[in-house]
This record gives sequence, structure tokens and C-alpha cells, in this order.
Amino acid sequence: MTKSNVNIAIVGATGAVGKVFIDLMKERKFPAQEIRLLASKRSEGKVISVNGQDLTVSETTADSFKNIDIAFISASADVSREFAPIAVQNGAIVVDDSSAFRLTNGVPLVIPEVNANDLLSHEGITAIPNCSTIQMAMVLKPLHDVNPIKRIIVDTYQAVSGTGIAAITELHEQSRDFINSETISPEIYPHQIAFNLLPHIEPFLNTGYTNEENKMIEETRKILHAPDMLISATCVRVPVFYGHSEAIHIEFENPFLPDDARKVLNDFPGISVIDNPQNNEYPMPLNSANNNDVFVGRIRKDLSCDNGLALWVVSDNLRKGAALNAMQIAEHMIKMGLIE
Amino acid sequence: MTKSNVNIAIVGATGAVGKVFIDLMKERKFPAQEIRLLASKRSEGKVISVNGQDLTVSETTADSFKNIDIAFISASADVSREFAPIAVQNGAIVVDDSSAFRLTNGVPLVIPEVNANDLLSHEGITAIPNCSTIQMAMVLKPLHDVNPIKRIIVDTYQAVSGTGIAAITELHEQSRDFINSETISPEIYPHQIAFNLLPHIEPFLNTGYTNEENKMIEETRKILHAPDMLISATCVRVPVFYGHSEAIHIEFENPFLPDDARKVLNDFPGISVIDNPQNNEYPMPLNSANNNDVFVGRIRKDLSCDNGLALWVVSDNLRKGAALNAMQIAEHMIKMGLIE
Repeated sequence: MTKSNVNIAIVGATGAVGKVFIDLMKERKFPAQEIRLLASKRSEGKVISVNGQDLTVSETTADSFKNIDIAFISASADVSREFAPIAVQNGAIVVDDSSAFRLTNGVPLVIPEVNANDLLSHEGITAIPNCSTIQMAMVLKPLHDVNPIKRIIVDTYQAVSGTGIAAITELHEQSRDFINSETISPEIYPHQIAFNLLPHIEPFLNTGYTNEENKMIEETRKILHAPDMLISATCVRVPVFYGHSEAIHIEFENPFLPDDARKVLNDFPGISVIDNPQNNEYPMPLNSANNNDVFVGRIRKDLSCDNGLALWVVSDNLRKGAALNAMQIAEHMIKMGLIE
Repeated sequence: MTKSNVNIAIVGATGAVGKVFIDLMKERKFPAQEIRLLASKRSEGKVISVNGQDLTVSETTADSFKNIDIAFISASADVSREFAPIAVQNGAIVVDDSSAFRLTNGVPLVIPEVNANDLLSHEGITAIPNCSTIQMAMVLKPLHDVNPIKRIIVDTYQAVSGTGIAAITELHEQSRDFINSETISPEIYPHQIAFNLLPHIEPFLNTGYTNEENKMIEETRKILHAPDMLISATCVRVPVFYGHSEAIHIEFENPFLPDDARKVLNDFPGISVIDNPQNNEYPMPLNSANNNDVFVGRIRKDLSCDNGLALWVVSDNLRKGAALNAMQIAEHMIKMGLIE
């Protein structure tokens, strides 16, 4: 870190990702001078402790970004579309957690361990990928570098915290009501999520895929600079609070021994291999929550093709899947001298 | 049904599958004359109502199978290995729900809708496939018949009832303890299952696959008479009580339009297509429980290959995945005149 007088704005400071972002500011000693907490009108006046300092949340308006160097935006795509350009006009760099600009030309879509150099061509807005994309791309990158990937099939098991705080509350309340034999009335999700699964994350497109599945496909191609990579995905919401899990099947150009993959993955920053199944050691949402790493296990030959590997990948969707990745982008931009 | 004086023994009458089997006897008016309820010594003396008749559970011994026409065995593989040959020596047909004989030559491994004719070559023991295999093979069969399958990748989301009654209790108790902020001590599973996922069903083999994953591969090949079919699987235990779910990606020899697949599947007995995602209609464990059908939805092109389809399949693992399939085998054998 070379600069310690960065002024930052956090749009969505009261949301699930915003809260983790604030935790991370302390954990990582992020060098902020001024910290401006922003949210919708509903949260105006809330007081949040940041690094031991009590800060009051303001409503996000066109005037919120004066003298801001970095604006983190983690709200809805609509909020990003409205305020990101204003923040840029005010001279800020935007690190955006929504889908609004991810596939836009001129907007780097970045996982710092994977494609930090894409930040060099930014035009004011940078985007972080979708949570389920980040943890997959983290694992694909080091493997792809040593043995080109031809085809990927991924099926996900995604935690409710990806939907936000209201969904965390919904799973908790539905579970409690179920245990007490009370009636369950879904509000956030179209169906009961407690003790159930929904093969439905984000709206359905005409292709039969959901928007979430489409993000995994399109964003992965952009991040890996592999526009023709063959990818299919099924995204499923599961009754887990924190930590997305993914069963990934990868076909490579050449054979890939599981032991070689294990070594390549272990050497990559931000990845932890937990792969000792005979001792019941493998990644699980429960042991990934509140951790910064992407955990990989169940690394084995994919028996359905000659040059395949099958893997099981788990990561805290609010950390590496969102807030941590956003903060790492800012840290990298400071280090690269991209933030004046 | 052409015979109404069948004497049947139910080994494992007090287990999760045994209980459903007894429910199904009433629902399907199974034409039994004598019904003998058998279990381990621990359950001896329990009284269970069968078709309105109170029956007492006896311990399974070598003498349990005299004058029995059909013995259903749903306990452990060890119990099956011990008692199935004795039942056959006593002249019974065994319908076995364990993995003990599934891959044995001379033992038909049967899903009646898929390969009923394999029953013709039985030598006394017939086996029902593993629950996760049954619902997948039900879906593969009609598709494979019109467009040969080359390769399958399946990732599962399996309910705790597949482990048995003690696991149902464990998920219930752990969920209650979590809600009440009490300590959770796993007993049946090696880790907490409430609000967590375990990529671990049955013991791990040297290949890195679990026994459950291996069953899905080997049993599917036997049932479909396709010894070279390419299959890979990741099997995951999820905090759901009833109903296994599977994300399946299939590569065919020729192109397959989703609409054509939908029609082929809908026409197959025992399959229900629920595939209206724009109205939030898709299969879920919650709407499959206590149903006899295999539910298929999310039918769409698999974007990772030219001739692929992706599907989402859910079924009640204790019904079509176990007790119902066993009963259907017996019904077919009676109809085919194989039970004297």
C-alpha cells in the first residue's frame, strides 16, 4: 500500500456485502482517510462502527461522490447504473459489485489473482464478477495456464446470503417455523427454501438458462480471455447460510494428473487445497464461511472423458465472492499507481 | 395382478424404506396373503399396522423364510448377503434393496419401466438399483432409445432420508439446536449436516470417487446394457429430508431439441415433466416427496457441446428410489408369471 489518504465511499453499506466490506477494512488495514457510508433513504441515519469509529449512513445522491477516490457500489444493478457514472464524473474510480457493467467493453472485470493487468485499461469503472464466477475462475486460471481448458460443466450449491440479508432471515425463520411445525410463507424466494432446493437463481432467459447461469458462462470467458470456451451451468439455491459450493468437471486439451492439478492449485495465491477424503477432509460451506480463501477438494480424474478432472470448490460468497475481491481490486489499483 | 395368495417377508420393516413399503402395500393394494415383518433383534416385538392389521415384528433368522414367495430385503448389504441366499433356498424370490448383489452376474438389476425383461433371467435374487441411479436411469432410458447417449455428467443433491431414520432425526435435531444457538455434535455424519453440505456419500474408493458415485456409473451401465457409456458423478448430501435432486448433462450422438426431449420424457411411464420456469415451476424436493413419479424440468440445450441437453431431475428417494421400485418388480414378476 503506497497511499494512505484515500477517500472512499461505500454504497450499500448496510447490505450483506457492505457489512463484510467494513469488517475487511479493519482486518486488512485498508488505508482510508475518509469513509463515507451510503445506502438507500431507508437506512439513512443508521450508525455503523468502522475501525472503531462511529459513522452515520447517508442516502446516496448525486452529491455523494465529491472528493471520493474510490467508490465501492454493492446494491442493485439499477443503483450502479444510476450512480457509477456520477461517481466517475466526480473523479472517482468505481469498483462495482453489480451485473450492470460486467460485460461492457472498456470495463475491466477483474479477479486480481487472475487478471489484475486488465485494470490497466479501465475508464473509470471496474467490475467484480458474480460470486459463483469468482470462485470457479480462481480455480480454472492456474489449470488453464498449464493445460488449456476446452470444456467446463459446473453445477452449483449456492447459499442464501448471495440474495442478501432478507434471505438469511427467511431461511432462519422458515427453519424455525418448520421445527415448530408452524406454517411457512415464502417471501423472498418463490418457494420454501428451508429443507428444500430451488434450481432457480435470478430470472430465466429465453434459452432456458437463468441469468445466474449465463453470468457464469459469459463472465468466465471475459475474465480468462477465452471467448470460445465451452461452458454449461446449473445454478441451485440450497438451504445454507454462507458459502457457495460448486461441482466442476473440466475437459483439458491434454491429460492432467490429479496430483499435478493439486500442486498447481496449491501454489496459486488465494487457493487452499483440502483434499484428504479418507480422513473426511474436503471443503464444506461450514468451514469456508468467514475465510478468505477458495477451497478446492475432491480432485480426481473425470471418468467421462480422457483429459478430464472433476473438482469440488467452496468459498465464502460474501468474501472472495464479493467484498474481498472488491477490496483487492482497490488495493491493486493503489499499488499499480492507478489511483491518484 | 393375477395372483392374490402371495406370502411376503419384509426384512427391514422398521427402517425408512420398510415403512414406505408398508404404506405402498395399502396404496397399491398389493395382493399379499401372509405378511411377515422382519428386522434386527432390537426391533423384535414392535407392532406395526399393515392394511389395518396389527402385525408383530420378528427377528430375522434362517427360519424366517419358510413358505415365503417374495422376500423384500432393505437393510444393510451384510444382512442381504446373509439372508438372501437362505430365502432363495427356501424357494422365495428375493427383491433386494442393498448393493450386495447389484453388479453380480445372474442378478437382474431392474427398474421395471426401463428393463423389466431382465427379470426373465433371474436365478432367485433380483436387485433394485441405488436410489440416485434409479431416477437418473428413468430419464436416460427414453432419451437413449431415440438418440444414443455418449456421455453423462451428473451432480447430485441427496436427502438425508437416503441414510435412514437416524439421519432424518439428526438433521431435525441439528436444525433445532442451531436455531436455539445450542452446540451441535454430529453422530451419523462425520460433519454437521444442518445448513451445510457434505460432498461425501458412502466410503471413498482409491479412485477418489465415493462408492455412491461409483454405483451411479456402474449400475447405470448395467441397467441400460451400455457397458461403455461414459459417466462421471459428484454425489453431495444436502440438508433436505426427502427427495434426491440431480443436475444432469447429457451428450448424444445427434442433436436433440429440448421440445422433443420434453415430449419423449412426458410419454414415458413414471415420469412427470414440470418445466415452466417463467412461472417458477420446476421440480423441487418439497414437491416430489410422497409422490411416485420422477420429476424432470429445466430441460434445455447443454451449451458446452453440440448435441447436449441439460436437465434437473427430482424424485422421492424412498419411493421410486427404493420401496416403490421394489414393489413394482414384484408386481411385474407376478404379472410375468415368474412367481409360482
